[in-house]
Amino acid sequence: MSSEYYEYQLTIDKILDSGSRSFPNREIVYRDIRRYTFSSFSDSVKRLMSGLKKLGVKKGDRVGVIDWDTDVYFHTYYAIPMLGSVLHTVNIRYPLELIVKTILHAEDKYLIVRDEFVPLIEKAANIMPVGMKVITYSDNKEKVKSPISSADFWELIESNEPIEVSEDLKENDMATIFYTSGTTGEPKGVWFSHRKIVLHTLSVSLVGARAPLNLTSNDVYLILVPMFHVHAWGYPYVALLSGVKYVLPGKYDYGLILKLMDKEKVTYSAMVPTILYLILSHPDAPKYAHVFKRWKVTIGGSALPEGLAKKAKELGITVIAGYGLSETCPVLTTGYYNSLVEGLDEEKKFMEQISTGAPIPLVQIKIVDPSTGEEKERGKIGEIVVRAPWLTQEYYKDPEKTKSLWKGGWLHTGDLAYMDEYGYLHIVDREKDAIKSGGEFIPSLLLENAISLHPKVSQVAVVGIKDEKWGERPVAFIVPKEPINEEELRQFLLNLANEGKIQKWWIPDKFIFINSMPLTSTNKIDKKVLREMAQK
Amino acid sequence: MSSEYYEYQLTIDKILDSGSRSFPNREIVYRDIRRYTFSSFSDSVKRLMSGLKKLGVKKGDRVGVIDWDTDVYFHTYYAIPMLGSVLHTVNIRYPLELIVKTILHAEDKYLIVRDEFVPLIEKAANIMPVGMKVITYSDNKEKVKSPISSADFWELIESNEPIEVSEDLKENDMATIFYTSGTTGEPKGVWFSHRKIVLHTLSVSLVGARAPLNLTSNDVYLILVPMFHVHAWGYPYVALLSGVKYVLPGKYDYGLILKLMDKEKVTYSAMVPTILYLILSHPDAPKYAHVFKRWKVTIGGSALPEGLAKKAKELGITVIAGYGLSETCPVLTTGYYNSLVEGLDEEKKFMEQISTGAPIPLVQIKIVDPSTGEEKERGKIGEIVVRAPWLTQEYYKDPEKTKSLWKGGWLHTGDLAYMDEYGYLHIVDREKDAIKSGGEFIPSLLLENAISLHPKVSQVAVVGIKDEKWGERPVAFIVPKEPINEEELRQFLLNLANEGKIQKWWIPDKFIFINSMPLTSTNKIDKKVLREMAQK
Repeated sequence: MSSEYYEYQLTIDKILDSGSRSFPNREIVYRDIRRYTFSSFSDSVKRLMSGLKKLGVKKGDRVGVIDWDTDVYFHTYYAIPMLGSVLHTVNIRYPLELIVKTILHAEDKYLIVRDEFVPLIEKAANIMPVGMKVITYSDNKEKVKSPISSADFWELIESNEPIEVSEDLKENDMATIFYTSGTTGEPKGVWFSHRKIVLHTLSVSLVGARAPLNLTSNDVYLILVPMFHVHAWGYPYVALLSGVKYVLPGKYDYGLILKLMDKEKVTYSAMVPTILYLILSHPDAPKYAHVFKRWKVTIGGSALPEGLAKKAKELGITVIAGYGLSETCPVLTTGYYNSLVEGLDEEKKFMEQISTGAPIPLVQIKIVDPSTGEEKERGKIGEIVVRAPWLTQEYYKDPEKTKSLWKGGWLHTGDLAYMDEYGYLHIVDREKDAIKSGGEFIPSLLLENAISLHPKVSQVAVVGIKDEKWGERPVAFIVPKEPINEEELRQFLLNLANEGKIQKWWIPDKFIFINSMPLTSTNKIDKKVLREMAQK
Repeated sequence: MSSEYYEYQLTIDKILDSGSRSFPNREIVYRDIRRYTFSSFSDSVKRLMSGLKKLGVKKGDRVGVIDWDTDVYFHTYYAIPMLGSVLHTVNIRYPLELIVKTILHAEDKYLIVRDEFVPLIEKAANIMPVGMKVITYSDNKEKVKSPISSADFWELIESNEPIEVSEDLKENDMATIFYTSGTTGEPKGVWFSHRKIVLHTLSVSLVGARAPLNLTSNDVYLILVPMFHVHAWGYPYVALLSGVKYVLPGKYDYGLILKLMDKEKVTYSAMVPTILYLILSHPDAPKYAHVFKRWKVTIGGSALPEGLAKKAKELGITVIAGYGLSETCPVLTTGYYNSLVEGLDEEKKFMEQISTGAPIPLVQIKIVDPSTGEEKERGKIGEIVVRAPWLTQEYYKDPEKTKSLWKGGWLHTGDLAYMDEYGYLHIVDREKDAIKSGGEFIPSLLLENAISLHPKVSQVAVVGIKDEKWGERPVAFIVPKEPINEEELRQFLLNLANEGKIQKWWIPDKFIFINSMPLTSTNKIDKKVLREMAQK
């Protein structure tokens, strides 16, 4: 008398299924090049699965993707994991040598490559995994002529009938793999199961509906996080589950992005602070005041400088911060209003929403002493350690680093922060960026924030340099908005110190003025480069 | 080099933890008797866990609860599963014999009993499980004097320090068990794991935020589904996760409920149609027009009659329907607006929101031929079969009924319905209530709906009686609003038939006028009793 009970698996196809059934005519838009409805997109994904399967893609096979933020990439977020294979979102901002290294480390058997990246891959053909098949495509659907191309992406879709996921697709199967940007040391691989992605999607969807974002299925997303970067923070999955229109910008061109935002009535975006800065300071920006007024933005990846947040607010943009790591899928906290903050005055609410934020549903956070692991009191600085249903189980093929990542059963973020009286995190430093001066930490993010408040400062980054007397001392790199001298800045900071906003001994010994910040492959300020510059 | 990776479990404590951290000062209110914040409630739950543990409650032990909708019941929804023991929500509307039967079947080792039910349990003491311990309480915290009482509920909380959940609590552990109301045949036991409840909570929270309910953390819930009934549709868990104030009405007293709704600024409720009917027709109702204007309601448990829905709408109430079974945790569908319906005119949207609804996130629904299991086209009537991550794995200790429940890997609801062009279900009948006349089904719910539109009809139910010529013929039971005769009703239905809204041959052969409907233990109309009355 055996039962045919169906053990429901939390797999990515369930997101696509829910989205395409509840919001069949919601759109996915790629520039002015192609439009899909959720329903036609679902059909297209299932044809791609069929095409990939015929090409030989099997359960567990890694499939790398090298592309901008396109409709092709959006397909692969679903089709590859739904086939039981593993989506490797290759970091296209890496130097070629590192790209190849990650492809070899992940053991990619297939690579999907946009035409403009084909020459790059041709160059490395002889050091790629043996037998790797390359699928190429171009925007206009013309076949890419290259000796390395084994198949055309569009043909895989167009010459096959849709198939459904196999019964042996399980929620703990590997769905995605990618490499952390590695501003220090070698890139490390992290991977995520279907289950983790589904649960992350549910929680990120839930928290988005909270104030001040108040996102609904009538919002329109244009996400400015490159799709090779940490599931583009989960939004390609959140979009289907939450039923929102999704606009894909291709390669970032801020003039075009502003136009797209206007034309497609975009209301929501997510990005690192640098991108927000680049958009707001774009020469066309003044023409789009009406677009900014309806715009809601989540900033993550790096701390949101108060100066930038205030500039956004003045334009009518609703801006909050979020926090997470490659290791954490990534979202851990966002600046939604919890029940303690919702009743505060506007100014105080604003300061909380642009802080590192409060844990989203199912996330557990502790602030601990980095050496002993003991929990710190509210308000005290320590390392952020976390538990959530969507954290990476390991650094791929690296048991040693995995061990320290998961020391004591909590994932160690390596970020130093305190939790304020309302339950919001305030990151004061990456552990590795911390400046220790005279035995005490100088929280570089707080200091940067203070400097960013000066009206002539456009961007700022502080790093530590070795100092015989103090161990380390801070050096500030400044991109000025208009000419400014060191003395002016020093006086400004002294005033802040007198007001009790910073410590006097935090004031940098040296200010270096530069034209633009060196950026990492994920558009964060590259402090490694700055440290080298500062030592000289 | 072993890692201490933490395998995150989807257990109920994670809901309590998220709620009490993000919404620490949100309130739980029990009448005008006691108030908690989420934070103090969490502390109280953890003290209760400690008290129960000291009393001897172990992992896997069943703990029955016999109570109205009180703060005590609310505690047990968390504390019992969080201790690894199993919450048995005993159906207090059953006759004593059936109550005992379910307690024996579930093998309850502990029973938590409100004072007014103690005499009932005393009466059955000698047929209860051997060694079962009874925990009693009264609202005013006076100890209950009874030979069967082993412990006082409040003392368990007040004389113990909070404890945390054990490391060996796993997401697939049994969390709850209860018995389906059994309008036909013996009650059947269904049980749910922590994981199922957590996933149900996430999805129900998500869909509540969709139009037309648009629920946010600033809504105030007063749920009018008895807490012994299917997780009171999930709201005691949804409340903590979504951060809403929750008002508990105790034993239902509609005058008091109206007062509570006013005083506590209630904005949202869920209930069976009978309860909405009782509230709207309460003599005090006209005094609460301002309360109804802000009120949003989900109706489930039975079909929402169009007449009642329209009356609610006239009062300014936003009303939608929902659908689910004891076997399904329960929510499967609700009348939220999907992307096809959101653009329709108000009248059409209203008809969809009061239909059986559209699948909520992660639910998969098919309409199949009940005999062959083959999927039916859109618009055709068949049985609803479902998959979701929160369906019961079995009828407890009943492999035979389990087998037919899960035939073919889909849960069989036994409900006949069609799916309309917009993707909304329309239940036309419980399979067991279906009336087959001349080889064709008469959809009793559609017929009841038609009769309910007559202005003099207050409530209606149609059942089939045996007929020599046709097999079965319909008989209508009517609770009139004001005097009405059979001829008037027959003419009304003939007009509807001429307009093509019903079939002429559906018109009942007999109309029976009664003062009130017989109800089941969960306040649904008891068609079994009506069928007996009709045969006489």
